[in-house]
Amino acid sequence: MTDDILIHNGLLLTMEDGLPVIENGAVLIRDSQILDCGPENQLALDLGRVHPGNRMDAQGGIIMPGLINCHTHIPMSMFRGLADDLPLDVWLNGHVFPAEATRLNPDSVHQWSLHSCQELLLAGTTTCCDGYFFEAQVAMAMADSGIRAVAGQGVIDFPAPGVPDPTRNIQAATAFVEEIRNLSARITPSIFCHSPYTCSAATLVAAKQAAEDAGILFQIHAAETQNEIHLIKGLNNRSVIAYLSDLGLLNERTLLVHSVWIDDQDIEIIHKHAACVAHCPESNMKLASGIAPVPRMIDAGITVGLGTDGCASNNDQDLFSEMDMAAKLHKVICMDPCVMDARTCLKMATIEGARAIGLGLQTGSIERGKQADIIVVDVKKPHMVPMYDPYSSLVYSAKSSDVSLVMVDGIVRVREGKLL
Amino acid sequence: MTDDILIHNGLLLTMEDGLPVIENGAVLIRDSQILDCGPENQLALDLGRVHPGNRMDAQGGIIMPGLINCHTHIPMSMFRGLADDLPLDVWLNGHVFPAEATRLNPDSVHQWSLHSCQELLLAGTTTCCDGYFFEAQVAMAMADSGIRAVAGQGVIDFPAPGVPDPTRNIQAATAFVEEIRNLSARITPSIFCHSPYTCSAATLVAAKQAAEDAGILFQIHAAETQNEIHLIKGLNNRSVIAYLSDLGLLNERTLLVHSVWIDDQDIEIIHKHAACVAHCPESNMKLASGIAPVPRMIDAGITVGLGTDGCASNNDQDLFSEMDMAAKLHKVICMDPCVMDARTCLKMATIEGARAIGLGLQTGSIERGKQADIIVVDVKKPHMVPMYDPYSSLVYSAKSSDVSLVMVDGIVRVREGKLL
Repeated sequence: MTDDILIHNGLLLTMEDGLPVIENGAVLIRDSQILDCGPENQLALDLGRVHPGNRMDAQGGIIMPGLINCHTHIPMSMFRGLADDLPLDVWLNGHVFPAEATRLNPDSVHQWSLHSCQELLLAGTTTCCDGYFFEAQVAMAMADSGIRAVAGQGVIDFPAPGVPDPTRNIQAATAFVEEIRNLSARITPSIFCHSPYTCSAATLVAAKQAAEDAGILFQIHAAETQNEIHLIKGLNNRSVIAYLSDLGLLNERTLLVHSVWIDDQDIEIIHKHAACVAHCPESNMKLASGIAPVPRMIDAGITVGLGTDGCASNNDQDLFSEMDMAAKLHKVICMDPCVMDARTCLKMATIEGARAIGLGLQTGSIERGKQADIIVVDVKKPHMVPMYDPYSSLVYSAKSSDVSLVMVDGIVRVREGKLL
Repeated sequence: MTDDILIHNGLLLTMEDGLPVIENGAVLIRDSQILDCGPENQLALDLGRVHPGNRMDAQGGIIMPGLINCHTHIPMSMFRGLADDLPLDVWLNGHVFPAEATRLNPDSVHQWSLHSCQELLLAGTTTCCDGYFFEAQVAMAMADSGIRAVAGQGVIDFPAPGVPDPTRNIQAATAFVEEIRNLSARITPSIFCHSPYTCSAATLVAAKQAAEDAGILFQIHAAETQNEIHLIKGLNNRSVIAYLSDLGLLNERTLLVHSVWIDDQDIEIIHKHAACVAHCPESNMKLASGIAPVPRMIDAGITVGLGTDGCASNNDQDLFSEMDMAAKLHKVICMDPCVMDARTCLKMATIEGARAIGLGLQTGSIERGKQADIIVVDVKKPHMVPMYDPYSSLVYSAKSSDVSLVMVDGIVRVREGKLL
């Protein structure tokens, strides 16, 4: 007998190139990694050596990689539904900023980060990419919860929670990176500049340099609203993307969040520098920010992942609804039912998302040697029957509540739809 | 002791005018009707007389009217996910029509109608409005399942399932109405003309006349696609809505399904005749049909309900996701985060929907004397916490899987999220 874990008796979608659909699929996990995967009767090792207590029966469900949420602010679950259906400035200045000013502290951030991790895990998300303040507390909650994550300390040129003196914002970010670097193999530090309109050019450049020095992901909200575009154009006589590019901020370790108001030239710039994009359709829709030209970005070869954004602007952290929304939104906007097909959307929520946040070699697909971040989706409830194509069922019919099993790093965190 | 049923210990949203939010709310049900509702300590009758086994504890959840699905084709659950991400003509002519031609028969229609009713009930939908062929079998499945429904026999000028001779399509519809009129107090017959481009003017007029003679709802897909608009314009030199109006088809017992490609004049015509509209955002998006000007219709005073459409074009029958989609889609299209607020969307999915399908006096809100169509939504899972505003939580955070209790006509059909 070994300590290996077997997940079997399911339809296996590995999300590898070619997107195979493997009937009677199984995944064998040793320690935190995937030792083998494929049709159960073709696995190399003797499955008889797996302890009966370590055999997890998918009961005919879909075995697939855990979902990757490329953009969120997990402590903001405390503001879920605090203020909706309002003009952007009233929402932000009248509700979100005041609430952040009075209610954010290390304890509340830790508490609501844990809360969000539970929400994320229950919804089949095994990795999230976050950006906020008091991010060390966020990272500790992530580590405690068992989720995999990229944790980005916020940088902004205003007094911020935990960083009252903005002249020390880069220093605070660097200190954060050092502080959590060895916290957990599951937690990767990052630096998150709020935006090109709340950070000076000097701050942006210094933050990117600090991220490069540490070899980590640099995140920034970019080209989210028309106002931002006009502001940057007025100040710098160029587009947001061109401005960031000219500052030397774009490379494969840069995650551009939103990228709503971009044109073909911007797309070319992003692609040339191999920067990645986090698409957050529900947030962009709810705040009436606009619609990112995602099909054109993907056609251009840009790596685009999916994000929920924080709970103040969505108001959940559910990648199943985000996939469905992305698929349907772009179809109707392009007036073409063929764009953003189910496979494309599922790739965005898994392997492409992992690549976008710099974790493409560790997670996002089920392949030998990758970390064992795996979920099982139940396919027996009426809304999942019949199932002609599992990709289609996952994007257009499945709900996050259909997730029955969630494993991160080889450890089961959700079983029978319940947190362990 | 009485046989009355009490649902209590919840936040009661009655969806009456003024949209009260009643803490410690309760609803008392006698036979199939609502006897009383309000704060538990203000109900008129002695609640001590309710048998302990008839007390249903909402456990702090939201007690609200069951949702009303204003447009679906429930037997089409058999084609859920059969063909997605395809051009409209390939989808329809290459997949849906051939599948309908070979697989529809009274038994399959009955079986998959039952399946859909289970899906609908589990998702908190207590009433659906359907249109299809073999509709008598659909109606029998509805009656068996316990759901409330408007069942519309399809009329089309082509050989159709169960109606091989199109010259007898009106006769078939009239016979259907007679056949199911006394099937169940929960099932209301209707006549459903497929569209202005698949029914001649003579057929449309005769079908409407038959519906008027019976005093029942007349349903029709109208102004769904640009192609339809161009076709009708070419043949009749007017808009689809003007064409239907000129044929005398529009009154308060007419349900216009989709109404995507309509202008301000059309909106005026619809409003003038008090015709109602079923908005199906997910279907319109997935098929890339277009975006109905719903905020303008509501501003004009038109009664607009929400529909999922059939499972071949959605691919589920879930009004929670439909509310969320409607809210977010119109915000981003109007570039205004204030339109389609949570209250408006929840009204569309309840009382406005009930009015749109002619059942506004029986269901859609919790009021004394109305039928007891009631659901309880659990608010304890992480994605529903915190809850600042129950309307916002229901539209932007809740999932259909949060529905814990479903009662139709005073009979509990779902308890603890499971079908009884």
